Amino acid sequence: MSQAKAQPSSQPQSEKSAGNLLKDVDVLIFDIFGSVVDWRTSVAREVQEVGKKHGIDPANANWANFVQQWRDGYLNTVRVKAQQDPSSVPSNLDIMHRQILDELIVKPEWNKYTSSWTEEDKTKLVFAWHRLRAWPDVVHSLLELKKYKIVVALSNGNIRLLLDMARYANLPWDTIFSSELFNAYKPNPKVYLETVRLLSTTPEKCVLTGAHLWDARGAAGVGMKTIYIPRPDEDDPYPTGQSVKTKAEGGEVDLVIDSFEDLVRLVKENHQGSRL
Amino acid sequence: MSQAKAQPSSQPQSEKSAGNLLKDVDVLIFDIFGSVVDWRTSVAREVQEVGKKHGIDPANANWANFVQQWRDGYLNTVRVKAQQDPSSVPSNLDIMHRQILDELIVKPEWNKYTSSWTEEDKTKLVFAWHRLRAWPDVVHSLLELKKYKIVVALSNGNIRLLLDMARYANLPWDTIFSSELFNAYKPNPKVYLETVRLLSTTPEKCVLTGAHLWDARGAAGVGMKTIYIPRPDEDDPYPTGQSVKTKAEGGEVDLVIDSFEDLVRLVKENHQGSRL
Repeated sequence: MSQAKAQPSSQPQSEKSAGNLLKDVDVLIFDIFGSVVDWRTSVAREVQEVGKKHGIDPANANWANFVQQWRDGYLNTVRVKAQQDPSSVPSNLDIMHRQILDELIVKPEWNKYTSSWTEEDKTKLVFAWHRLRAWPDVVHSLLELKKYKIVVALSNGNIRLLLDMARYANLPWDTIFSSELFNAYKPNPKVYLETVRLLSTTPEKCVLTGAHLWDARGAAGVGMKTIYIPRPDEDDPYPTGQSVKTKAEGGEVDLVIDSFEDLVRLVKENHQGSRL
Repeated sequence: MSQAKAQPSSQPQSEKSAGNLLKDVDVLIFDIFGSVVDWRTSVAREVQEVGKKHGIDPANANWANFVQQWRDGYLNTVRVKAQQDPSSVPSNLDIMHRQILDELIVKPEWNKYTSSWTEEDKTKLVFAWHRLRAWPDVVHSLLELKKYKIVVALSNGNIRLLLDMARYANLPWDTIFSSELFNAYKPNPKVYLETVRLLSTTPEKCVLTGAHLWDARGAAGVGMKTIYIPRPDEDDPYPTGQSVKTKAEGGEVDLVIDSFEDLVRLVKENHQGSRL
């Protein structure tokens, strides 16, 4: 992450590429978990609350690690299992989150803290994933970006989850696209291609912005442009210990930005430029 | 229409029913064409522009009637043809609008005005359906309603059309649902049922609001609640010369409102009531 943050995204060369990159783009597509919202602290806060209710001192249970394991269960499912056999995994993330939670809490490592959890506690925690806070650079930037481009979500979260989250975190999407619509999870090419089809556009008029190289690879694989934004601990251990590079630097993405505000600046500059 | 406007929607009995109606509702679903936006004058204006460009005096050509015939072609296709054999009609409304336009302009009645139209003219007019203005009671009401309920579009328009229209007319949907997602057109039950599924809810927690009895029947058929709003010439000749009645009055819909402002008032009253 720290290496990625040092990307020379504000150097003149990158600026020029960014102008070309955004020139013919109609649609900005955003990954959600980790890229737009901070799932880690948002969910950990709610897990800690449930723990406290059952008398667990947060100093004893490493709830941050619990939430990371929950998220890892999701990542393993959608990046491997769902790609090999889509019918083997639920197409609704709420249901998948519940299955992974049920497996996690019976593990010896956690069972001493979680054995007294009720049905109500578990349901509350599954829906904690609907109540995630946006990273601080997101909301005002999306409102600006929306003036110039179509701004949509594309996530492995189900529609209701993404809709609740948008209302909770004030995310002003023009509309929401979910893997749930396509019976396939990112990075399955179907998800990106069907999104393009529903937008009545072509892949090269779309940019996917997100914090995960595996997602960027999926989007680039169907011809979309890609912007990478490093977020704390988000793309670790993928790729292991390496920074994400632009194509111009020998890497895989079209652009690396430090914040959503960078993207607003580039879109505005490009818009002015296109009027000259 | 004038009869429907005389519905006693503001009488105490209806108010009480409205409170019960909205009590357990999470989602307000809105029909778009005619219900939320005024397609008739919006599209006629653009047709008239194209006509003028080709030297046609608007006093000679009845463009309002031309647009009505275009719309009738759509209604006949989705209400009869698409229900009998979904595979026989395109699942994208832009494509259907273009097919109907191509058939319309070669008719002797119109060909004298339209024979010089270019490919560019025809494309512009198909996309006129993306640039529709909202009825004056809509936008501020949707912003209010959104504070209390989930507020979504459900239309036979394709996703890109609905998305462009939302941006053009400032419609603040939480998300957009389109028949295009389901390979079926309203009033096919599949469209309403799949919308409910994607909202992770149940039909009775959803209200469909719109200006067409055939749409309300489709929604009620799967268990949704229905609110009817009369709009000028919108539900004529369906039903022929009769006003739309609520179930309490022996009709088919749960409630008849005069404007979106009525709906805001009822939702707010119900919200206060639910806190007592």
